[in-house]
Amino acid sequence: KTAFRWLSPLKAASSVAKTLSPGFSGGLLQTPRPASSGVRCQELHAGGRSPTQSPSAAPERGTFSRVTPEDLAFFRELLPGRTITDPDLLEACNVDWLKSVKGSGEVLLKPKTTEEVSQILRYCNRGNLAVTPQGGNTGLVGGSVPVYDEIVLSTALMNNVLNFDSASGILSCQAGCVLESLSVYLEDRDYIMPLDLGAKGSCHIGGNVATNAGGLRLLRYGSLRGTVLGLEVVLADGRVLDCLTALRKDNTGYDLKQLFIGSEGTLGVITAVTILCPRKPKAVNVAFLGCESFEQLLQTFQRCRGMLGEILSAFEFLDRDCMRLLNTHLKLANPITDCPFYIVIETSGSNPTHDEEKLHQFLEETMRSSLVTDGTVATEESKIKALWSLRERVTEALTHDGFTYKYDISLPVERIYQLVTDMREHLGDRAKSVVGYGHVGDGNLHLNITSPAKDPALLASIEPFIYEWTARFRGSISAEHGLGLKKRNYIYYSKSNMAVDLMGSIKILLDPKGILNPYKTLPDDLQ
Amino acid sequence: KTAFRWLSPLKAASSVAKTLSPGFSGGLLQTPRPASSGVRCQELHAGGRSPTQSPSAAPERGTFSRVTPEDLAFFRELLPGRTITDPDLLEACNVDWLKSVKGSGEVLLKPKTTEEVSQILRYCNRGNLAVTPQGGNTGLVGGSVPVYDEIVLSTALMNNVLNFDSASGILSCQAGCVLESLSVYLEDRDYIMPLDLGAKGSCHIGGNVATNAGGLRLLRYGSLRGTVLGLEVVLADGRVLDCLTALRKDNTGYDLKQLFIGSEGTLGVITAVTILCPRKPKAVNVAFLGCESFEQLLQTFQRCRGMLGEILSAFEFLDRDCMRLLNTHLKLANPITDCPFYIVIETSGSNPTHDEEKLHQFLEETMRSSLVTDGTVATEESKIKALWSLRERVTEALTHDGFTYKYDISLPVERIYQLVTDMREHLGDRAKSVVGYGHVGDGNLHLNITSPAKDPALLASIEPFIYEWTARFRGSISAEHGLGLKKRNYIYYSKSNMAVDLMGSIKILLDPKGILNPYKTLPDDLQ
Repeated sequence: KTAFRWLSPLKAASSVAKTLSPGFSGGLLQTPRPASSGVRCQELHAGGRSPTQSPSAAPERGTFSRVTPEDLAFFRELLPGRTITDPDLLEACNVDWLKSVKGSGEVLLKPKTTEEVSQILRYCNRGNLAVTPQGGNTGLVGGSVPVYDEIVLSTALMNNVLNFDSASGILSCQAGCVLESLSVYLEDRDYIMPLDLGAKGSCHIGGNVATNAGGLRLLRYGSLRGTVLGLEVVLADGRVLDCLTALRKDNTGYDLKQLFIGSEGTLGVITAVTILCPRKPKAVNVAFLGCESFEQLLQTFQRCRGMLGEILSAFEFLDRDCMRLLNTHLKLANPITDCPFYIVIETSGSNPTHDEEKLHQFLEETMRSSLVTDGTVATEESKIKALWSLRERVTEALTHDGFTYKYDISLPVERIYQLVTDMREHLGDRAKSVVGYGHVGDGNLHLNITSPAKDPALLASIEPFIYEWTARFRGSISAEHGLGLKKRNYIYYSKSNMAVDLMGSIKILLDPKGILNPYKTLPDDLQ
Repeated sequence: KTAFRWLSPLKAASSVAKTLSPGFSGGLLQTPRPASSGVRCQELHAGGRSPTQSPSAAPERGTFSRVTPEDLAFFRELLPGRTITDPDLLEACNVDWLKSVKGSGEVLLKPKTTEEVSQILRYCNRGNLAVTPQGGNTGLVGGSVPVYDEIVLSTALMNNVLNFDSASGILSCQAGCVLESLSVYLEDRDYIMPLDLGAKGSCHIGGNVATNAGGLRLLRYGSLRGTVLGLEVVLADGRVLDCLTALRKDNTGYDLKQLFIGSEGTLGVITAVTILCPRKPKAVNVAFLGCESFEQLLQTFQRCRGMLGEILSAFEFLDRDCMRLLNTHLKLANPITDCPFYIVIETSGSNPTHDEEKLHQFLEETMRSSLVTDGTVATEESKIKALWSLRERVTEALTHDGFTYKYDISLPVERIYQLVTDMREHLGDRAKSVVGYGHVGDGNLHLNITSPAKDPALLASIEPFIYEWTARFRGSISAEHGLGLKKRNYIYYSKSNMAVDLMGSIKILLDPKGILNPYKTLPDDLQ
């Protein structure tokens, strides 16, 4: 077991960090500085807030207008049959997927075209009416539902493919296309989407881009920052910003579309997307493995990157407690023997024989060196799906375990499970379950804590503990979920005061009245 | 030869574009709209400008202060021995690599730390002194030298590696590290830089990021938008914006660092970079092939993407005229028989046997189907370098052919050579050479036109012809070189008026006095 200890990333990282190449002049080896803006973080957990009010609770309603019968008449003329005010139909768009936040929006608008979105926003901006853009409403931070009576602008009917170039693999489509529908469309044409996530059956590509979604393929195909080639965005005042080019390279001026990727609908409404799609792999294999320790899991990851190289398309993990929840709540069986840690490895490649050879060599070596204690491999689609569901359905299993406190943390990969262990120790028996799973390849941990019911005392034990822990190692308190309503005030744990102030200036530049997705993303002291 | 006609990307693209999936609702199939802002483009080539003055000529000097003896005293105290005013030493930093533009900067500052950069900019901003940030000064659009008497702020002494994590491959370094030095540093540690370009021996990583450099590996490792994980930037007023995280994922608020990537030093001075580096491939192969037509070259590209898949790391081309210039001016011999088109294909992978098998299968099939008429393959490093130099040294060969008009165009890949052919026909015998080469995998053409000397009449034949041609197919008039001084006024051919206006607002937000790299990137009507 100790044969591969030299590969331990913890050791390797610290020793290399202190070794400067002779090619570089000496001195100035800086130690990482935590971004955490101490004072503003402290104010967050004390000060004016009542002790029962969490920093994630909604702030007071802004001074927006309320929707009048005249407003409704305008919308009904613009969107006949697509201006929804029936309370039963409004229910679904006011509540998030987790049923953790609920707004009281009284109007749901379903435009079909960019021009309609433009007219809606021009009208709302003039009339000071707040608007919540909504895609598939699958977000986990309360970013896609109204907080008060904001008008819901849904992209559900904006679901056309605009163009697909089978030579370059460049897809252009409206923002409301469902991710899974795009996947099916592309697979027929021998391509795939560069992103994949559990919510694929509902989430919209526009929402994916607006939240800079990560997901299961980021390790291989990179972030949306690189694969999104073009965007069409309607600004708060209704002007249409056309950056919908279909070019892999374009260095003519500032790359404005980047502003909107990950801004959670607070700077503009994305109406169309151009995205670079990879070829459909000719062979896909999935291995489900068990490990005795997280240290061994990390060693397996290092080995895997070396031996599978360019065909590695995912390296995910879940812990024993996740497996317990899958067994208990979803009746999913563990396909291998019980272990503290489980790994899902996916390979995607162009030559089935070569891929199988690489995978088998890798599996043999990890088994022989006892890095991995048990495992199973799938090559046919139904079995691949079954193995993937063990990873993808953890979120769902958690919803059956009780009230869930969800955290989505980025850290140097060797730290990610230490946070789970420390949290378990810190909480003792106050929590029902403390589970960890996520994207090892991206250093992204999903830490979830459940309790029989909402429990302010438990929450007070979790926070700010978890945020301080993350800031200490210069991690991100939201790796891929975004800030939305729930995490907006915690931004200072990962971003400097100056960075947050600059974000505020950009918000004012693009949406001076603040009508777009208010109470989201930016902290209350900037709103 | 016709057996593969069905693969022709021209045909495939147009037929797919008209076929909507049954899963998507009908209608709204939009035709691409050229971004070209007609009126502002027309004004550019007529109106107030004298007929001999090209839109790339410098505008009038801005109302900046001139450097006084008091200013020099301040700089000398801050940077003893690193405040250069000797005219002989200033010569090199006032002229670009192409010797096409020349400024008259009287001070060269060489800070070593971020703090020094901060103090310089704070001082210059207060005193209204203009500053040109300069890395390796390898740019091709006159972006990295003073236009008038701007102070040159060089990153040459900011060349320390700050940290390298061998577990994740995340490198953190100062902006002045030379790309090739970083490559050497990483190769010793079993990693490589995700970008590579001809200027690697001189260019700085900070300059690469500031200009969003593309280069030879973009096809495989994607753009800097995805691989740059963190930046430290000093703003115009001297404040330090610390976004130097080393995380693959971070969705806490707007991604501010994206503003500075590709902004050519006009929004801030990049002082440090964190970048995600790929593992060093265990096997690299290079094939140099000849094709009879560009149509066959494109078919070879499609075949190549399918058969080499994940190990394909570059697909570059040069035409017969490039080869003639390499032969004539650099005495480089053609390793294969004379052809109208040459291809450089590189594979990088983790298993030498598998890679060789894939490459040989691919070569056999392309030879058998007569897509390719001749070729040679290299696996050892010296021969690989020799083959690569045929592609990398075209730029150098051109400098010996005469005065060179350089264009860097992005287009749908099936169009790229049509522009060269149309240009040749359009110019007739007015040009000495009209050559095309570039990155097929990225749809990026380098079109170069030479003449015995500077020739305003020839230029008037080239422009606006080339820009109008590019705008017609919604291409980019600067794929990877940026706009700098020379191309700034042509931005309207690729960006809408509204987009350019928004860029201007962002410039004012971040650099209200306009001291950072004036006369660059943004068009004169915004400056």
